[in-house]
Parts: sequence; structure tokens; C-alpha cells
Amino acid sequence: LKAVVFDDTLQFRDNVPPPQEKTGSVLVDVIQAGICETDLQLCRGYMGFQGILGHEFVGVARSGTFAGQRVVGEINCGCQTCGWCRGQRQNHCPDRTVIGILNHPGGFADTLLVPEDNLHVVPDSIDNDTAIFVEPLAAACRIPQQISLAGKPSVLVLGAGRLGNLCAQVLRVHGCDVTVRGRHQMKLSMLDRLGIATCDTATPLPSHKWQLVVDCTGSPDGLADALQAVQPCGTVVMKTTVAAEHNLQLADVVINEVTVVGSRCGPFDAALDLLSANAVDVKPLISARFPLNKAVEAFEYAARRDVLKVILDVNA
Amino acid sequence: LKAVVFDDTLQFRDNVPPPQEKTGSVLVDVIQAGICETDLQLCRGYMGFQGILGHEFVGVARSGTFAGQRVVGEINCGCQTCGWCRGQRQNHCPDRTVIGILNHPGGFADTLLVPEDNLHVVPDSIDNDTAIFVEPLAAACRIPQQISLAGKPSVLVLGAGRLGNLCAQVLRVHGCDVTVRGRHQMKLSMLDRLGIATCDTATPLPSHKWQLVVDCTGSPDGLADALQAVQPCGTVVMKTTVAAEHNLQLADVVINEVTVVGSRCGPFDAALDLLSANAVDVKPLISARFPLNKAVEAFEYAARRDVLKVILDVNA
Repeated sequence: LKAVVFDDTLQFRDNVPPPQEKTGSVLVDVIQAGICETDLQLCRGYMGFQGILGHEFVGVARSGTFAGQRVVGEINCGCQTCGWCRGQRQNHCPDRTVIGILNHPGGFADTLLVPEDNLHVVPDSIDNDTAIFVEPLAAACRIPQQISLAGKPSVLVLGAGRLGNLCAQVLRVHGCDVTVRGRHQMKLSMLDRLGIATCDTATPLPSHKWQLVVDCTGSPDGLADALQAVQPCGTVVMKTTVAAEHNLQLADVVINEVTVVGSRCGPFDAALDLLSANAVDVKPLISARFPLNKAVEAFEYAARRDVLKVILDVNA
Repeated sequence: LKAVVFDDTLQFRDNVPPPQEKTGSVLVDVIQAGICETDLQLCRGYMGFQGILGHEFVGVARSGTFAGQRVVGEINCGCQTCGWCRGQRQNHCPDRTVIGILNHPGGFADTLLVPEDNLHVVPDSIDNDTAIFVEPLAAACRIPQQISLAGKPSVLVLGAGRLGNLCAQVLRVHGCDVTVRGRHQMKLSMLDRLGIATCDTATPLPSHKWQLVVDCTGSPDGLADALQAVQPCGTVVMKTTVAAEHNLQLADVVINEVTVVGSRCGPFDAALDLLSANAVDVKPLISARFPLNKAVEAFEYAARRDVLKVILDVNA
């Protein structure tokens, strides 16, 4: 197996033992995969992960119901027996593995093993470059699943990177009045072209202005900024994990009766629907593509502040 | 005016200028008042308050619609003109004053001025000792106003003090399966006698066990404990303000998709209904009573860890 392995250092290897077939799981021959902020964090020691990275992939199922079809896969693999799994909430199964993140080899490889229940067929209208955005777009679609947007709230998205961009687009589809605050003019210009309002971090952050603030900064400062920007009785969504400790004043959460909602993986069907309908624009987010055997260079490139999505081509 | 004034130090004074009458406000002759954790924090510099303390009071309205009747008063006094006030959310008016807490003289005095709209008549079935619990009980009643308890969630209340006790009782009335975790056997025994399950802080805190955790500790450690105890997709209510900075790992809020809800003042009508119906038991919480001119001793006594509610009698 050719694969990108993190094992204290990041390496491309062409002699990795292939995954063993398993009842209920399907081998997927990967076409291409996307590098995510979480991958970069895993390489800095987050979660103590060791193994094959990659959780944004599109491939072809080798067997099972979807044999020969293009598929994407949800990344949480539950035990299928506990109450969380039986209640259709395997994303929170305490014994779950997570593809490319936790005790499950990922998609930066020519083949990976995925529970068949996790697979979603990619319709012909969605090409491969678009399909690698299903997983992060699903994460953005988790927000309307958790929070009522019925009142079409005013929204500030903190962070104009990969995930901030997708969250902003999804929230706009839901009718929200969205502003994105970011650091890099190139990333803000991309949102400007989509007709989404932007402001940059050089401008002072208004206080208590937005009903909903989504923190996609990946920075420990993001939450403090979100708590400053949100209205009383408003909602802050924590969309990015921060491995570092937070040091912050939380009295305002009580005084202003703010609701803070942690938000992780989301519905693939909603993301596929948005992409099929061309309701979100993802291809401009692709900054570069590298063959799988140049993964180390690809990771270095993906970590640059002026870069958005980097694709790894398995068959290049 | 006789009053308890905080002005860098806490003092009883008998020569304070009386409040000036004001359109829309009513003079209330105070009968008695309760000392709250917030009062103790204000004396440690919280909010930078200076003036007459006291926001849990029962008195007799001197004029207006309720002249001659016993009343309690909501503590947030809005500007009555902004969008928050017009939307019946004066608790979050950015220009509000707060009785005994923020730019508004409080109820540790023989008389205070209260906006007439803030007053609620105390029915004859509720005696004065019970009536001083309307304000903190309303704060506990804020929880079911903010969060659906329809599924009768399992609840852990952190802290067995004044507010923890009231929150536990209110949540039990709403059908929740409530456990209270506290430090002091006397306070836990009081809950045991009400048939509420308890555990003490000497026992290790179970992880991810409860659907709802209410932090009433008033301690910076409370939130970390709450995040440990709450189930994935569960809710943490921050019921007490903590002036100190929090230093904590918040990645689990995202990973476990926890909702954290800040919760402050609540509905007086709900609290009065519970007290009228004898649905909560507040009198055992009274640890001691002092005359107003012994307020300094009363505050020292209220700060003891084995003490719950301390009453100040204005006419003693």
C-alpha cells in the first residue's frame, strides 16, 4: 500500500501493509483526498495520532452495495452496539474510531477500509475536486442542525480559512446576514466575490453586535473575540478545536446569557445536496494539488497562511 | 435613611440621604432582605460597585398601584426605550441599572426606590421569610425558561449552597432526576431530607454521565468539572458568575458537542407560583438573622462555608 503515515514524523511510504477486509466494511480505492487543518494539528501531536492520515477523500468502492461507484465516507465509526450507535448518534460512540484521526487508517493511501454504512454515493453532477469538500461542508452543515436559524440571525464568522468560508456559505444559504472576519486579504477577497460581507482583523471588533458568532479561527483567542462580538442572549458556535488551554474571562457568558455550542461533524446528505445544487462554491478554495508521494511538501504548503485547500492525487 | 453601604469597606450608616421619588418608580419600605453570594463578591470588588447593597428584599409599597401591599421586586431596571426593553428583555438593556448591584441603591435599607413595573405582589400565603427567596428562586426558574426539560434529563448540580439547593429543587419539580454534588455534609443532608440524591466532592466525579450539569459552585473549577461530568451532546448551565479568569481545555466542548448556557435572572411569577404551592422548601435554608445595624457581622457570618441564607431584619 502507498500511504502517508504520521509516526512522530510525516512520511510517504510505499510498503504499508494493506487493510484487512472486515464484515460490514468495504475497501475503497481512493482517487484523491484533501488536507484539513486537523491533519496539520495531528502532525503537531494533537490526539496523539499515529498511522495513515486523511479523512476528506473520494474513491471507488471495491465491493458491497456501492461496488464500482464513486463514494465519500463519514469518518466516525461507532461500535454499532451501544446506546449512542443504536440511537443514530455514532458520532458520539465512546468506543468509536475516526477515519484518519483516531485508531482508524485514513484516506491518504491508495486504499482504505470504510464501514459500508458510512458511505455515500457521489452523484455524477459532483466531480472529484468538488467531492473532497463533502466532509468539511458537512461539518459546516452541522450548524443549522444544532441551532435554529429560523429568525435569519445576523452572523459573524471568525476566520476566513477553509472552514470559515464553508460555514459562511452554508449560513448564507440558510438566509442569514453573514459577515466574515479574517486576517488575509486574499481569503477575504474570495468571499467578497461570493457577495459575502467581510472585515479584517486590523479593524476593531464591534462589541455585542451579532446574534450568532461562529469561531473558525482555530486559535485560543477566537472564543474571547466571539464572546465580545455576540449579542446578549446570542449564540457562539465553537467550530474549530483548539488543543491549547484557554485563559479567559467567562463572567460575560453568565451576565449576557450567551449560549456556546460545540460543533463537529455533520450530515453528508445535506452537503451533497448543496453541492449538487451548486448552492455553494468550493473549487476556488483549491490552492494546489500534489501527488501522494509528495505529501510532505503538500503538508508544508497547506500550512502556509495564504493557502486554502490542498489536494493529494493518489494516482498522479 | 438607615442603610448598609459598601464604599471600599462595608458599613452600616444611619444618615444616608433618602432616595428621591421618580416618575414610574415607587418607594418600598423594606421589611427584611437576604444576603446573596453576589453581595459577598461585590464586597470583594466585583463590578466595582459602591453604594447601598441588597437585591433580595420584601417590603411594603408606599404608593402606586400596590400601595400598602407587600411586594418583591425584579432587580434589572431597563431604560424602557431601547429595543431590548421594548422586546420585554430589559434584563439585557445595555443601559440598565441593577438594584443593589449596578448604579441603583439596594434593599439593605429602610426604604428603596423600585420601578413600579418591577414589583410583584406577595400573596398572603407567602410569609416574609419565604418571600426573600423569590429573587434567587426566580434565578433557578430561569433554567427551564432557557432549556427544554421535556425529556426529563438526568441532572447534576455542582454546589450544594443557596443557589445549588434552589436549582436542584426547581429541576426536580420539572421531573428531572437530580443529583447534587457538594463539599459540606450539612448542606448535603438538607438535600437528602428533601429526597434529592447527593454525592460529595471526596468521591471522584464520574465522566460523561449526566445530560445536564448546572454549575452553582461560584468557583473557576466548576466549569471544568461540569465539562467532565456532562454527556456528549449534553448541556452545561453556568449559573454562577466567577470574577476570576478561567484556565481550561475547551477542545472537549467541540469534540463532545456540548452546549454551555449562561443563566442569570429569572421569572418572579414562576418563583411566586412555586412558593405559593409549597413546591419548594426554602425556610430550612435560613441559617441566621441579624438586625440591619449588625450587617457587618451578618456578612462575615454569611461568608462561612457552613452557612446558607442570612436575613437582615430592617425593623429589628
